[in-house]
Amino acid sequence: VTNPTVRAGGRPRLFTPGPVEIPERVLRALAQAPPHHRTGEFRAALLRVTAELKALHGTAGEVFVLAASGTGAMEAAVVNLMGPGDHALAVAGGSFGTRWVRLLEAYGVPCATVAVEWGRPLPSAELARRLDAEPRARTVFATQCETSTGTLYDIEGFARVTRERGIRLVVDAITGVAVHPLPQDAWGVDAVVCGSQKGLMIPPGLATLSLAPWATDAIDGVRLPRFYFDLRKYRKGLPTGDTAFTPAVSLVLALEESLAMIREEGLGAVHARHARVARAARAGAVAAGFSSFSSSPSHAVTALLPPGGVDAGAVVQRMRDVHGMVVAGGQDQLQGRLVRVGHMGAYTVGDMEDVSGALAECAAALGAARIEPGAAAAAARAAGQD
Amino acid sequence: VTNPTVRAGGRPRLFTPGPVEIPERVLRALAQAPPHHRTGEFRAALLRVTAELKALHGTAGEVFVLAASGTGAMEAAVVNLMGPGDHALAVAGGSFGTRWVRLLEAYGVPCATVAVEWGRPLPSAELARRLDAEPRARTVFATQCETSTGTLYDIEGFARVTRERGIRLVVDAITGVAVHPLPQDAWGVDAVVCGSQKGLMIPPGLATLSLAPWATDAIDGVRLPRFYFDLRKYRKGLPTGDTAFTPAVSLVLALEESLAMIREEGLGAVHARHARVARAARAGAVAAGFSSFSSSPSHAVTALLPPGGVDAGAVVQRMRDVHGMVVAGGQDQLQGRLVRVGHMGAYTVGDMEDVSGALAECAAALGAARIEPGAAAAAARAAGQD
Repeated sequence: VTNPTVRAGGRPRLFTPGPVEIPERVLRALAQAPPHHRTGEFRAALLRVTAELKALHGTAGEVFVLAASGTGAMEAAVVNLMGPGDHALAVAGGSFGTRWVRLLEAYGVPCATVAVEWGRPLPSAELARRLDAEPRARTVFATQCETSTGTLYDIEGFARVTRERGIRLVVDAITGVAVHPLPQDAWGVDAVVCGSQKGLMIPPGLATLSLAPWATDAIDGVRLPRFYFDLRKYRKGLPTGDTAFTPAVSLVLALEESLAMIREEGLGAVHARHARVARAARAGAVAAGFSSFSSSPSHAVTALLPPGGVDAGAVVQRMRDVHGMVVAGGQDQLQGRLVRVGHMGAYTVGDMEDVSGALAECAAALGAARIEPGAAAAAARAAGQD
Repeated sequence: VTNPTVRAGGRPRLFTPGPVEIPERVLRALAQAPPHHRTGEFRAALLRVTAELKALHGTAGEVFVLAASGTGAMEAAVVNLMGPGDHALAVAGGSFGTRWVRLLEAYGVPCATVAVEWGRPLPSAELARRLDAEPRARTVFATQCETSTGTLYDIEGFARVTRERGIRLVVDAITGVAVHPLPQDAWGVDAVVCGSQKGLMIPPGLATLSLAPWATDAIDGVRLPRFYFDLRKYRKGLPTGDTAFTPAVSLVLALEESLAMIREEGLGAVHARHARVARAARAGAVAAGFSSFSSSPSHAVTALLPPGGVDAGAVVQRMRDVHGMVVAGGQDQLQGRLVRVGHMGAYTVGDMEDVSGALAECAAALGAARIEPGAAAAAARAAGQD
């Protein structure tokens, strides 16, 4: 198979739900000899990064940068916001919503679970009903984009429900930040968790937790056992750019660069581009014979069911082997059923044309009715117009 | 002041207790576009890294690679090895020994503390006496190189004491690995914690925990609350190079390169070089009018008291401003009293000649009797011979 989209040198292109392709500018920032963290040079960089993250999250509160992957920041949210005897409610409609449940269980937090059908959204009225039936649950743990199913949840609606009831809302926006809007203070979200290897376009290893201004005192007092993730330790250094523990210096410098890229493009334009790219991905895949798994598709990850008779795992394999493109399969209960295409960060409609054409080739090669790759690519291009 | 040791371009040279200077080879590894972590390419890299780390630690057990700084791996040791009701004993002779105590306290672990005078070693007979007086303490938490004081502890002796008593020994070797020998299985150390930004010569953000073969089942059963650091989750992927959570891919590839450098030089040669460099650092500093703070100096960090009448903070500042060298001051109770010179990783006796000359210039400029920088450098060179 001759494929013009295979990259010179044979390095595969990443279209996964994270880590994502790293822009050249960010790789150059990574490659610099890093300064020591107890120097004015690094402190100034960390202060700039923290200020940019506050702007990105739309919060006047506090943003903490942790050396960990996203799950570490999820754990930080649990251990800093929950105390002994506190009850929680978690929205679980996929692997990452379920991760909140497992995390809360690991710390012995009594937790009511709203089990949402995978790939379906949760109407905020349903969240309200469940909260009213669980009066002891004073903190809700939810997900903005459920990566395992490519589903977007209505965080603005969830926040309306929790605010009305004086309940805290903690959102895993690891695959949502810099993809979908989540203006934290305006919507009324108490805490937002984020990871580096998604919309922030840097390699994995950094995670952030942001607290809205009215929620900053929520981490004080007796909470679950905490040390490495004890945000009170990080808070001390926030005004000066000092850190409680040795920070992941190189990744912070890379983040400074990627945040500059987002600022230059404009956050609104970044969100609009992700919307176009996601539309292109869906339309191209549908033209190639696939169907969208989620009834509330996110702009971060497109979860696809292959055409009847085509094995999802074989598509993932052939995308890699023939087309030089890494896409993901399904997780947990969706293992072997889905093809997931990630497009968080520096992706374009043109990338989705390539992916759509490749998906069409794979489907035909694996037994589906033949669809011209160019037709799938054209459908992606058409859907990706403004 | 004309100083031939200031680097072209003005970037300061790092001589801190970590992060350390990153070799060019490692920076190049960092700058490559990283592969996705769920690919054969990354799995193979992680398997190679894990095998190299086992060789480095001298263990046939298990090594876990965590996306965290060293303190995260210390926390992993506590939450995976200690269960409810377990008692500990911690050796605290500086900021990092005290960190074990604070960590155990944060999780409510009853902990007896052996408060060692800062800068002094702990005779293993004294550890034995304390353990015999604290029969409930079945796990000892200790430090190989106490970074805050530049002190080396006798881990081989500690392990003899704990083995005789069937007590577990957990060692923070964050600044010890690839500097001083610590053959884990041969000495009988149950668990060793390590960080990336020290002897391993990569930027901060990775930490490891290794379990001796007879200690691998110590993480099973009811333990303290754990999720992100739950080593049972990491263990599942060890045979295949899979990870429980998204790994810090770039840093793992950088670590592969630095471990290759250590293998090429030879671990014995690496240890011998650190011994020479440390001797040179001490002798040069003493010739410059400083005195060694520790009575058991490590090969990782040299802790120095400035000549009488000279302010340690002013030395640190002048080393940076005039000589383009970042050294560290004292921490906690030693704040303002020490100058600490780090020399873990890719340092040479020649580097210590430069540092010694600069220290002599600083001391004289800040009020001490003038000593010729060349004389201090010569003393370093002489002491650094084989």
